Amino acid sequence: MRLFYLLFLGLFFPSGLAQEREPSQQLLQQAQSSGYGMDLLTDLTTNVGPRRAGTPADVKAVEWAKAQLLKMNFDRLHIQAVEIPGWHRGEAKAAILTPAPQPLVISALGYSVGTPADGIQAPVIRVSSLKALKNIPMDAIRGHIVFLDHKMEKTRTGTLFGQIVNGRTKGASIAARKGAVAFLIRSVGTDSDRFAHTGMLIYDPKLPKLPAAALSAPDADQITRLLSQHGKVTLSLQLSCRPLPMTKSYNLIAEYDGSEYTDQYVQVGAHLDSWDEGTGALDNGAGIAIVTAATKHVMSLPQRPKRGIRLIYYAAEEIGLRGAQTFADGHDLTDIYLAAESDFGAGPIYQLHTRFQEPESPLKQELLNALVPLGITAGHNQTNGGPDVSVLVNRGVPALILQQDGNDYFEYHHTANDTLDKVNPQHLQQNIAAWSVMLWVTTNSDAELPKLKN
Amino acid sequence: MRLFYLLFLGLFFPSGLAQEREPSQQLLQQAQSSGYGMDLLTDLTTNVGPRRAGTPADVKAVEWAKAQLLKMNFDRLHIQAVEIPGWHRGEAKAAILTPAPQPLVISALGYSVGTPADGIQAPVIRVSSLKALKNIPMDAIRGHIVFLDHKMEKTRTGTLFGQIVNGRTKGASIAARKGAVAFLIRSVGTDSDRFAHTGMLIYDPKLPKLPAAALSAPDADQITRLLSQHGKVTLSLQLSCRPLPMTKSYNLIAEYDGSEYTDQYVQVGAHLDSWDEGTGALDNGAGIAIVTAATKHVMSLPQRPKRGIRLIYYAAEEIGLRGAQTFADGHDLTDIYLAAESDFGAGPIYQLHTRFQEPESPLKQELLNALVPLGITAGHNQTNGGPDVSVLVNRGVPALILQQDGNDYFEYHHTANDTLDKVNPQHLQQNIAAWSVMLWVTTNSDAELPKLKN
Repeated sequence: MRLFYLLFLGLFFPSGLAQEREPSQQLLQQAQSSGYGMDLLTDLTTNVGPRRAGTPADVKAVEWAKAQLLKMNFDRLHIQAVEIPGWHRGEAKAAILTPAPQPLVISALGYSVGTPADGIQAPVIRVSSLKALKNIPMDAIRGHIVFLDHKMEKTRTGTLFGQIVNGRTKGASIAARKGAVAFLIRSVGTDSDRFAHTGMLIYDPKLPKLPAAALSAPDADQITRLLSQHGKVTLSLQLSCRPLPMTKSYNLIAEYDGSEYTDQYVQVGAHLDSWDEGTGALDNGAGIAIVTAATKHVMSLPQRPKRGIRLIYYAAEEIGLRGAQTFADGHDLTDIYLAAESDFGAGPIYQLHTRFQEPESPLKQELLNALVPLGITAGHNQTNGGPDVSVLVNRGVPALILQQDGNDYFEYHHTANDTLDKVNPQHLQQNIAAWSVMLWVTTNSDAELPKLKN
Repeated sequence: MRLFYLLFLGLFFPSGLAQEREPSQQLLQQAQSSGYGMDLLTDLTTNVGPRRAGTPADVKAVEWAKAQLLKMNFDRLHIQAVEIPGWHRGEAKAAILTPAPQPLVISALGYSVGTPADGIQAPVIRVSSLKALKNIPMDAIRGHIVFLDHKMEKTRTGTLFGQIVNGRTKGASIAARKGAVAFLIRSVGTDSDRFAHTGMLIYDPKLPKLPAAALSAPDADQITRLLSQHGKVTLSLQLSCRPLPMTKSYNLIAEYDGSEYTDQYVQVGAHLDSWDEGTGALDNGAGIAIVTAATKHVMSLPQRPKRGIRLIYYAAEEIGLRGAQTFADGHDLTDIYLAAESDFGAGPIYQLHTRFQEPESPLKQELLNALVPLGITAGHNQTNGGPDVSVLVNRGVPALILQQDGNDYFEYHHTANDTLDKVNPQHLQQNIAAWSVMLWVTTNSDAELPKLKN
């Protein structure tokens, strides 16, 4: 009778293990009919809004998150303080002074120093890549505002970001070493809208700190045209940003224990902080909504999963993965069966990438069987797990990523335009469905997942 | 032999009058091969940039325009002073104070008064249309910031703008009459980007002048959500704009005389001024490029047209059609055979609308015969000719409009995002081709075009 049942199910659901079918089907239905994820995202982006780590709004976001998690049926909730540097954004103004006076649209890079109150006026020198900046002679740069103009093309995976963002994080110090007076970068984004994309920079402590800002793409193109016509272009730059004392943010860590592998957790998460010009809908309200809704759906099933769920809202991802580092430093990571995060907007998921010690672990096939109905296919085994999870992967924790379509993500990423209306509710639901199924399969699999060896 | 030639041409060009074929074909070829229009637009938006009427950049634009027109072979160039009020934009800031503190993206409406230096803090009241604002009782509004939240849908013709923009021009005074303390309007635009669309307001001189600004669409939606959840929302508004003394801008009027109807001109034009946050590429650098390139192409033909061309760059269209009014007041309009303007971006032209005293004038058929190869079909006879030309139509001047596809126009209109990259070069060339052919046909037609009777 049992065999017949399996075969019967097999006819209708030819892929997948029959014993996981029923909860999976339930989860798919629940994810498709529930508005919980979109409601959560709406609430966070409306009632909290921008929530840069270390600001009062970040504290409000933590309070909001705590209230949401307490409404759920977790076995415990831990709030972990994370030390972070403070920073005041202030005002950012720039203009072309000669030969064609006009304002520019910029955004100070995160943790930039300010300019003197009356600003900096200097000729600009354009370089087309970080490599070109490294190679250009000091004499060409000394006394100039360096303008790094590296265009980013749209791709589904967004992998070009990883290359180009180095200019944003490191460019100011490389320019400083050559005697530049300020640093501007073409926004690391794929749009051609009059928004500057902010984001962290990292100063080399041995070099002078240059004021640094991102230019919108149309402004970058305007400067490039003027330089090619006139040779010399002078700019003004005024930033009133400044460092503030060390302050705190908080990781929120909620646990729901398993019924069988009680010393193991599938750790799913997303970062709660955002940049401060938009309301952080794609980056990363969507991630919060996806992982929370998936967890809630799995927790609403009548049976506990075999393995526990650890839902973590990482603090301060945007300012150097501070929350993930603090978590990893303070935790015995051997209780993590597998880690996954959502931090790439709300584009539909189309592929499963893993980072398993044994790439062909039976878990991979179990996952694919369950995810195929959502149009998700097999990817590679080289993922670093995403920004926060990469910290865990580096310490041997197995990971997976549900790869989202990122074609639109860098249109809005780190701009004032990252707002709720940019999230497609149907795509968000597809994400939640995939995460719900993934979470069910990974918390119930009997496959062992050995730690990664480096 | 002549008859044979006509018939022969008729086989290949079945629509149209054969004697207009050859120059029309030449013009089409020239418009398609020449980069002149795009170069002109690039130059204006790059080397002048934003050029709000009455600012130093506007004077620079006039100098630029004069230089361009002097390079062409006109018989005369007249520069006509236009009196305009001055205005200082200054800074515009707004924020939600309660229940969810966060900054808002706004732009002061043109010619708004400022707020006190420390701003205005008040509860907001939302109305969904100008009609609703007119009907709401005074008690509901007194002491409030009025928020007029009228959404504009995308259409090909952009006609909804005409209805909704009344809220922008008149809303502040209607709110003032009921005791409001400030006026915010959802941007009159079709995008959902974090840009506010600026534009003129008109104060009723008998009423207090309220500080007034436009909100970006995502910010308007954010306030609406908070109001629906919490009932009460308070905002802060800080505008440092202020009126300046009367100043001057300039119409540029260039004439190229005809060979036969020497007392008649086809008057083509576009406004040179722009709003001051973008570089005025769609509004209205494109119009300047289109009418100038078409005029240049017709003037490059070996034979003069029968009728003259008057190319006019209107001053200060954006601040109440001041240039067109000044021109009309100072000119005997009986020498205008027909007037046309380009002021709707660079979307492809798909229809010919007219305003002729005799709707079925033979000129209409001549035009359609020549424009059909460009995919342009017959429209109606009720056009007002566009903003500047409407002043002439009101005084009896026949007019036509080459209707552009306006689906994208109000995505960018009056925002910082109206920049060169938003203009599609192929579409611009189709416009120039259509205008060149239209200009050739109208300057050579033997059809009489009687003045309009009201």
